[in-house]
Amino acid sequence: MNMPASPTPLFTAHLGVRWRDLDAFNHVNNSSYLTFLEEARLQWLKHVPGKWYGTDAMPVLVSSEVNYRRPIGWPAELAIELGAEHVGSSSLTLAHRIVDAAAPDTLYSDGRVVLVWMNPATGKSTALPEAIRAVLAQGPGMA
Amino acid sequence: MNMPASPTPLFTAHLGVRWRDLDAFNHVNNSSYLTFLEEARLQWLKHVPGKWYGTDAMPVLVSSEVNYRRPIGWPAELAIELGAEHVGSSSLTLAHRIVDAAAPDTLYSDGRVVLVWMNPATGKSTALPEAIRAVLAQGPGMA
Amino acid sequence: MNMPASPTPLFTAHLGVRWRDLDAFNHVNNSSYLTFLEEARLQWLKHVPGKWYGTDAMPVLVSSEVNYRRPIGWPAELAIELGAEHVGSSSLTLAHRIVDAAAPDTLYSDGRVVLVWMNPATGKSTALPEAIRAVLAQGPGMA
Amino acid sequence: MNMPASPTPLFTAHLGVRWRDLDAFNHVNNSSYLTFLEEARLQWLKHVPGKWYGTDAMPVLVSSEVNYRRPIGWPAELAIELGAEHVGSSSLTLAHRIVDAAAPDTLYSDGRVVLVWMNPATGKSTALPEAIRAVLAQGPGMA
Repeated sequence: MNMPASPTPLFTAHLGVRWRDLDAFNHVNNSSYLTFLEEARLQWLKHVPGKWYGTDAMPVLVSSEVNYRRPIGWPAELAIELGAEHVGSSSLTLAHRIVDAAAPDTLYSDGRVVLVWMNPATGKSTALPEAIRAVLAQGPGMA
Repeated sequence: MNMPASPTPLFTAHLGVRWRDLDAFNHVNNSSYLTFLEEARLQWLKHVPGKWYGTDAMPVLVSSEVNYRRPIGWPAELAIELGAEHVGSSSLTLAHRIVDAAAPDTLYSDGRVVLVWMNPATGKSTALPEAIRAVLAQGPGMA
Repeated sequence: MNMPASPTPLFTAHLGVRWRDLDAFNHVNNSSYLTFLEEARLQWLKHVPGKWYGTDAMPVLVSSEVNYRRPIGWPAELAIELGAEHVGSSSLTLAHRIVDAAAPDTLYSDGRVVLVWMNPATGKSTALPEAIRAVLAQGPGMA
Repeated sequence: MNMPASPTPLFTAHLGVRWRDLDAFNHVNNSSYLTFLEEARLQWLKHVPGKWYGTDAMPVLVSSEVNYRRPIGWPAELAIELGAEHVGSSSLTLAHRIVDAAAPDTLYSDGRVVLVWMNPATGKSTALPEAIRAVLAQGPGMA
């Protein structure tokens, strides 16, 4: 699960850890990392100009890989950095880094998720929407 | 992220989906899968006879890989199957399958997590506890 | 916030505490109680014969009151008992008791929530559906 | 469950709704409101100068009342306003208002929670710590 050397930077979301993200070990629970990534991903998609989904093409999460590099406490402000690692005909691999917003050298997590655009009616994958291809060609945006 | 052919079966936990596990897409949210795995893993560890943790050796989750094979709705009863995929000197790779408890051929998810036993005081990895080695040598248990 | 002496028993749901319900104080977090109540309420509604909601009449939670009588640990099996405390023209007050499934004298929580049936299009309250009135007249069911 | 006319303002926390706070009805789930209140309460306590807890006196949540005035969508920025409604010998009643950070006249929720300071060893209530009394005498702070 090594990170490829250089995913193309796409978007950075900022997010405050909530006390409820902690579990009984007093660290942010492993499942919350996926919630942080989802929040960043949906904020990014909301910024995409044009139609990135429709009744015949919805992005579906097909896999996630998360490396837990260092425990996260509370309170903390995080920066969730997303990058495009691989663009397929119907899929998009988003690499992530979760760092401390105040100390970006402090890496809490890296990894990736794979999205596939699918037609909900047929359950088949469909071509990546033009709006997504366009924004990936354009390069990085910022929250 | 293919599953090795045959992780050694260890433990199966049963668990009811809660309505709150659904998200705004009306399917179980991707982060809940990690919560289900954690529940199964801790139920398994609770069954381990002997001392599987101590002040100088705590299991820490260092990575997770989840494949989302099929959406999960509500209500549903799930079986979370854990198997030992790799046993290292200080680490344990647990493979999982999440299936429908009533229809075990319905695979919702597979993947794996890696646990490393660490000394919290030093932050260094420590040898896998004897209690864990013993239970891994013993073979499968059931919830 | 005393419980009226005798809400009419309606439904009991059984539910396993998950380790993730614990917070950093090692007890079930206060917000999880509302998730438990919601699970029991929706399981009950799913059992109601007939049409208890529609495009012109949806139940909306308008208030919740929860008394935390005793901390809940993990693992634990809970019984969530719901009773009808007050039936209005468009509202239903559901009283609850959360007890230990294995030791029903151990009361973890009591309280109530108020549901109002509303027309989502107009935002106005509507008459309680006939299906709900019928089931309330009938008396208790069991999970 | 009416709000007394004028709880003494204590603290306001700001918090971004996460997409995961939504449930299958596409509104913030009723349980998340308690998570928002908890976050505001703990941020406030973190600001209290002096020793507001110890091994012999821990605040315990004994009840919550939440009125859901208006559904909350995503994305949204919220302001959680806390006020002291009642100060007892060992208890503190905190009233709350959840409003839209960008449009503070938009009231999403009001209600209250009761905290009691208890000695964990004996399970008996103890006197409100001096640090809490002092900060309550001082009046409002701001996040």
